[in-house]
Amino acid sequence: MISVVIIGYGNVAHHLVKAFHKAKNVHLKQVYARSIETIEHLKPITSVTNSLELLAEADVYIISVTDDAITKVSSQIIGKNSLVVHTSGSVGMNQLKNSGRKGVFYPLQSFSKAKEVDFATIPFCLEAENDKDFQLLEALAKAIGEKVYHITSLQRKQLHVAAVFVNNFVNHMYKIGYDICNQHNVPFEVLHPLIEETSRKIQHISPDKAQTGPAKRNDVLTIENHLKMLNEEQKNIYKILTNSIKNGEKL
Amino acid sequence: MISVVIIGYGNVAHHLVKAFHKAKNVHLKQVYARSIETIEHLKPITSVTNSLELLAEADVYIISVTDDAITKVSSQIIGKNSLVVHTSGSVGMNQLKNSGRKGVFYPLQSFSKAKEVDFATIPFCLEAENDKDFQLLEALAKAIGEKVYHITSLQRKQLHVAAVFVNNFVNHMYKIGYDICNQHNVPFEVLHPLIEETSRKIQHISPDKAQTGPAKRNDVLTIENHLKMLNEEQKNIYKILTNSIKNGEKL
Repeated sequence: MISVVIIGYGNVAHHLVKAFHKAKNVHLKQVYARSIETIEHLKPITSVTNSLELLAEADVYIISVTDDAITKVSSQIIGKNSLVVHTSGSVGMNQLKNSGRKGVFYPLQSFSKAKEVDFATIPFCLEAENDKDFQLLEALAKAIGEKVYHITSLQRKQLHVAAVFVNNFVNHMYKIGYDICNQHNVPFEVLHPLIEETSRKIQHISPDKAQTGPAKRNDVLTIENHLKMLNEEQKNIYKILTNSIKNGEKL
Repeated sequence: MISVVIIGYGNVAHHLVKAFHKAKNVHLKQVYARSIETIEHLKPITSVTNSLELLAEADVYIISVTDDAITKVSSQIIGKNSLVVHTSGSVGMNQLKNSGRKGVFYPLQSFSKAKEVDFATIPFCLEAENDKDFQLLEALAKAIGEKVYHITSLQRKQLHVAAVFVNNFVNHMYKIGYDICNQHNVPFEVLHPLIEETSRKIQHISPDKAQTGPAKRNDVLTIENHLKMLNEEQKNIYKILTNSIKNGEKL
């Protein structure tokens, strides 16, 4: 049985609380949040506190707060010799400033409170200072999930940038497509199968081989026609991405 | 029974030939290609030709050639009073220059010859000059698929630009993510679940509501750190898309 305290109650923490509560080999001892109101509803399943001085004893402390607050919060975990980890994709392990052992427990997925999460499909990117702690984190991840990767702080930072491209920027491409459809009374659902296929394709062939379209074909006429239909911001993005695809073709 | 002649043998035509051949209510009478070698293997299932003067009689002629060639090819379909359609997302119906009836039969999906296609999931964007011809195209689409939309030439052009964003540009975001992972020996598969989730999410909530990440949060520190890790081209794209997401937030 691994005992856990979760510090913070954002989207990631919300889903971890639910998953750890259900997990057989995990004892969720406590949840901390700055404002107690946000976690009072958890009282039936775990202890809650808004004081870092009143943290319960546990094997692992999971700090799941905004990136900027990780260092400060970790420095306030006093007198605990346990493993302290954060759940961030972009913060180095050594930015933890607790006095004891350090690690990272980063579930690589986009979380929103409203949407159910299946941890079985989510890659856990783990890091620790030594093998024993890594194994502890691995056991914790496997209590709620299946996919575990050893990812160093440097690799994780790179992964996080990559994730911005394949998640946030991809979503922004969807948003532009959505805006164009809306403006012309075309149901966005017409594009759903294409969106699904595009995302599925790269699970089998690499994205550079999967590319199609006017930029890849250097179809100048179509590109010109497209540019005429876009607003300034869309046009700017269209040009830059078209050129970037073309550059890739030249290499 | 609807009789069909397919003109051209690119990716779309390849899959239409297979689907029409299997369809109960369609008689695939002939396939045309400029070089006969590319279609000779179709002889067991249909007639083949490399001469537009030798086209068989049919209810519908489907021109599935490169966009630039549609006008010219259609003008060479002489003495046929049947319905002539093209399969392009970006060419207007009136760019068909056959003497008779005109229409559009545009299956909105990204096709590659190597990959099987399930037409049941693909939206057919149809257009015709009159109701009767629209119904003919609808029957043809429903012989191999399920989803039919009436999309005007103007709407289709807009859809095509939107498709460049949600397919080609999205794929380019995947490519950049792939490059970053490769460079740092991180398996790209770590990002697969995130990619899937991102594409699935917008089938339930609109993309503007689905957005997360440093640009949306205006997390200046993370954005600065990310920019340091990218090459010039990636940096340029990162900046422009981050600003565009921020702009959306302000509206």
